[in-house]
Amino acid sequence: MTEPRRKIWGWGYEGEGLDAAEREALAAALARRHGVDELKPRAPAPQISDIELAPTRLKAPAVLSDRVSAEPYDRLLHAYGKSFPDAVRALRGEFTNPPDLVAYPRSEEDVAAILDWATDARAAVIPFGGGSSVCGGVEPAVGDEYAGTVSLDLARLDRVLELDRTSRAARIQAGIRGPALEAALRPDGLTLRHFPQSFEHSTLGGWIATRSGGHYATLYTHIDDFVEALRVITPAGAFESRRLPGSGAGPSPDRLMIGSEGILGVITEAWMRLQDRPRHRASAAVRFAGFTAGAEAVRALSQSGLFPTNCRLIDASEADNTGAGDGESSLLVLGFESADHEVGPWMTRALELAADHGGMVHRPEGERAHREGAAGAWRDAFLRAPYFREAMVPLGVIADTFETAITWDRFESLHSGITERMGAALREITGRPGTVTCRFTHVYPDGPAPYFTFQALGSWDGLLDQWRQIKAAANEMVIDSGGTITHHHAVGRDHRPGWERQRPELFAAVLRAAKQTLDPAGILNPGVLIDPAGRSVGVTGAMAAE
Amino acid sequence: MTEPRRKIWGWGYEGEGLDAAEREALAAALARRHGVDELKPRAPAPQISDIELAPTRLKAPAVLSDRVSAEPYDRLLHAYGKSFPDAVRALRGEFTNPPDLVAYPRSEEDVAAILDWATDARAAVIPFGGGSSVCGGVEPAVGDEYAGTVSLDLARLDRVLELDRTSRAARIQAGIRGPALEAALRPDGLTLRHFPQSFEHSTLGGWIATRSGGHYATLYTHIDDFVEALRVITPAGAFESRRLPGSGAGPSPDRLMIGSEGILGVITEAWMRLQDRPRHRASAAVRFAGFTAGAEAVRALSQSGLFPTNCRLIDASEADNTGAGDGESSLLVLGFESADHEVGPWMTRALELAADHGGMVHRPEGERAHREGAAGAWRDAFLRAPYFREAMVPLGVIADTFETAITWDRFESLHSGITERMGAALREITGRPGTVTCRFTHVYPDGPAPYFTFQALGSWDGLLDQWRQIKAAANEMVIDSGGTITHHHAVGRDHRPGWERQRPELFAAVLRAAKQTLDPAGILNPGVLIDPAGRSVGVTGAMAAE
Repeated sequence: MTEPRRKIWGWGYEGEGLDAAEREALAAALARRHGVDELKPRAPAPQISDIELAPTRLKAPAVLSDRVSAEPYDRLLHAYGKSFPDAVRALRGEFTNPPDLVAYPRSEEDVAAILDWATDARAAVIPFGGGSSVCGGVEPAVGDEYAGTVSLDLARLDRVLELDRTSRAARIQAGIRGPALEAALRPDGLTLRHFPQSFEHSTLGGWIATRSGGHYATLYTHIDDFVEALRVITPAGAFESRRLPGSGAGPSPDRLMIGSEGILGVITEAWMRLQDRPRHRASAAVRFAGFTAGAEAVRALSQSGLFPTNCRLIDASEADNTGAGDGESSLLVLGFESADHEVGPWMTRALELAADHGGMVHRPEGERAHREGAAGAWRDAFLRAPYFREAMVPLGVIADTFETAITWDRFESLHSGITERMGAALREITGRPGTVTCRFTHVYPDGPAPYFTFQALGSWDGLLDQWRQIKAAANEMVIDSGGTITHHHAVGRDHRPGWERQRPELFAAVLRAAKQTLDPAGILNPGVLIDPAGRSVGVTGAMAAE
Repeated sequence: MTEPRRKIWGWGYEGEGLDAAEREALAAALARRHGVDELKPRAPAPQISDIELAPTRLKAPAVLSDRVSAEPYDRLLHAYGKSFPDAVRALRGEFTNPPDLVAYPRSEEDVAAILDWATDARAAVIPFGGGSSVCGGVEPAVGDEYAGTVSLDLARLDRVLELDRTSRAARIQAGIRGPALEAALRPDGLTLRHFPQSFEHSTLGGWIATRSGGHYATLYTHIDDFVEALRVITPAGAFESRRLPGSGAGPSPDRLMIGSEGILGVITEAWMRLQDRPRHRASAAVRFAGFTAGAEAVRALSQSGLFPTNCRLIDASEADNTGAGDGESSLLVLGFESADHEVGPWMTRALELAADHGGMVHRPEGERAHREGAAGAWRDAFLRAPYFREAMVPLGVIADTFETAITWDRFESLHSGITERMGAALREITGRPGTVTCRFTHVYPDGPAPYFTFQALGSWDGLLDQWRQIKAAANEMVIDSGGTITHHHAVGRDHRPGWERQRPELFAAVLRAAKQTLDPAGILNPGVLIDPAGRSVGVTGAMAAE
């Protein structure tokens, strides 16, 4: 039995995904939606042997030879993340920036040795967790100033090293993926409960480096708050923070590394705060006549101090698309869970608030309610979405998402502005009407994190260029509206133009100084977030003009 | 009527504090406690006219002349914070490091102009909020490398500039003190609900710069999480973050500034997240036979997801000292509050958990319960504590506190170790037995923040040196035990030796690089947290050997 291999052009393992009947049904449904007679897939999945791959420019020293690979499959797998333009380019067999080598360290010493060698060799090093980046965060598109590129895959640093049941925390290696992590914690009744959509194919280190957003709709929205301490290997040495439940001693060292997207060091392990596995649950679906009314209810909920685990408001079209809606109402999927207490009083009050704002409550009963009804339908669609997306690309359908966060006072103008401008942009760029839908993935007392999904029928030949124009327009809309360029998809390369308008210029100067201190040769993930001092990588990869 | 003036040697305004009868009773009680016949105050409060003050070495340019003062009162008021050694030195009339000038900017332009002038003049600038630092954070003890020192008092930047009721947030100037801030928010039914012990005499900017700890025992323990956006004036220009309820775009710019203690820039305003004023409350006192049993109950509470507002476990001696105890039991003061819902179900479950761990529950009833009973007695003592402490100094009593945070697995050994080692240190250093008590001020799912109070009878002449030895021992114990050198008192100058053992060395290097970027001349609060690049300020002020 061979081990399953991950696809170089799509989500999950080779052989996984939609079956022929599903693909046919999808093509028919999309043809109807976009008003054409039929849609036929244009690109069969590429064969590795057919792909032209530039020769490797680097040679690792003998001592590292069993830690590195120059095999075509390894290089191709690490050439892209999982964004829409990644899928387009991979399906076309265009691999213009594959890493010269892929390194698989088995220890921190290996990581340090690879960084030392790369510094000497003037090779760029791209830390690689699960490779699920949707913003060009792992593409070795570093310009011409490096002797070559190394993708540093943490997959073999994949163990839970220590577990502290009393404090509910564990020391965990960064390369572990979601399912393995949860499996390791389960025997002790513990769970990280961080379930980004990429859960199965993303890693702890990747979540921390990109400020991933997970399971909890309120309170513990990002991975940030679960980080108790970090170990990071930088070209200048090891950076290890102290295990502390809280501290007021100077600026937080962890917060410098959380969200640093591989430009300051390689996260090798973290002490993570864990949860007891929930024993009590309640879930409900509430329908609202309009998204605005639903948003008002969610605002009240977000400011109530009830902290629902799930509080996802889905607009009518999107609820309908995922099979959870009735096509007319916005849908609020509401959930509470606890390992300690019955959550009835919490749900009762939350539903009162929803009803006060015009919500029509449907509350499934029973033990498995969180996996049933509207909530369950939506959950299943959520987890399978990446497989659907990869099947849309060969049909020429541009389907992508972007997310932001905004204070409540500006939400309505952001939502109506983006819906309208995005509709116009899709029509202008593709020559056809597209769709724009919205849901809230996470909510805060001072504002929601709206998540937009758009879809349009593109032209197969111009697909990449059309996507770039649409993406640039989306970036601008978000920043013009006062939002953040990303709530939990990270900056990478694709969001840099927006991020540069958003962050204080002096903060970028501090980041460059931090990078100069920790990575003086500027080898780590150049072009992500900032250019290293003295080098201009700029926007490369998916966002570069062809 | 003259405006009340703040004391140069103690807490609050001139004329405030204990009255003669209270002082007499305190002296008698302390004499009994320390086993001496009587204790007589040795130092009358100094008269400003009697204090020898070095001549001012700086002259501000004419354009700033109405923004600066070289008056003795102003210089003396800004010479110290409110720590124990500050009180000793001030009561003795020893003002060795007064600022040469005190600046009172009325605008951000003033702040920028003062920083520009100071950069040119090679003058050190010490940002000053309420001046309530207990760790040498505002003392102009900067060594010999500067032409002089300026205390930059933000008191005139004291307004709420903008209020966003929808998002529950306000844009607030950094120099506003607690009571004025709450008064400004009250008409809109809003509150920041950040009540450090220094509340009346500390400022928003000070809270943010020092990662102050406040009202909430769980969840919103530090000011950090209430910060939505910041404006900071640095010598290199303005640093302004975007108003966002949450973001995943790169490392957080705000978290670089939160806890920077005035070394990177001057916080001039912040968008702060607010709360609705609570309408529902429940409070209870629970007694435990021992502190360890109480700690186990608090651990269960901290991991329950109930998030009590108040969850302060006080050991038997400390509860007794503040008049809230029975002398034998540890006391847990438990409170819930909400603007949205009755908190009965929350309290009911919390008391079940407490009872499961051997707690004996006393639950006051009625509307004003949070101000009555054991909880109320403790609260009143808490707010008056600074006045008591200033009255102890002239009696030769060394009374001080230190706080930390530690994961639950190591709490018991930290607690017993510190109690024992501190008892031994007090006896060795003062030649007499002292007392060490403990309470939890804040708790996290992965550990508590224990707060230690110690008291010993010192010798009037050696008071400062005795305190230094004790403080150095306490710093070491905390760090040896795995804790943080400070949970919410900041690092300043007095905690630097501990902090240097705690933080990653590479993080200090990054902070120096950040400082070099934002404050290239190294004028801002030199000696706090780090020495500026190329200068050695080291430990000065209260912790320097005489």
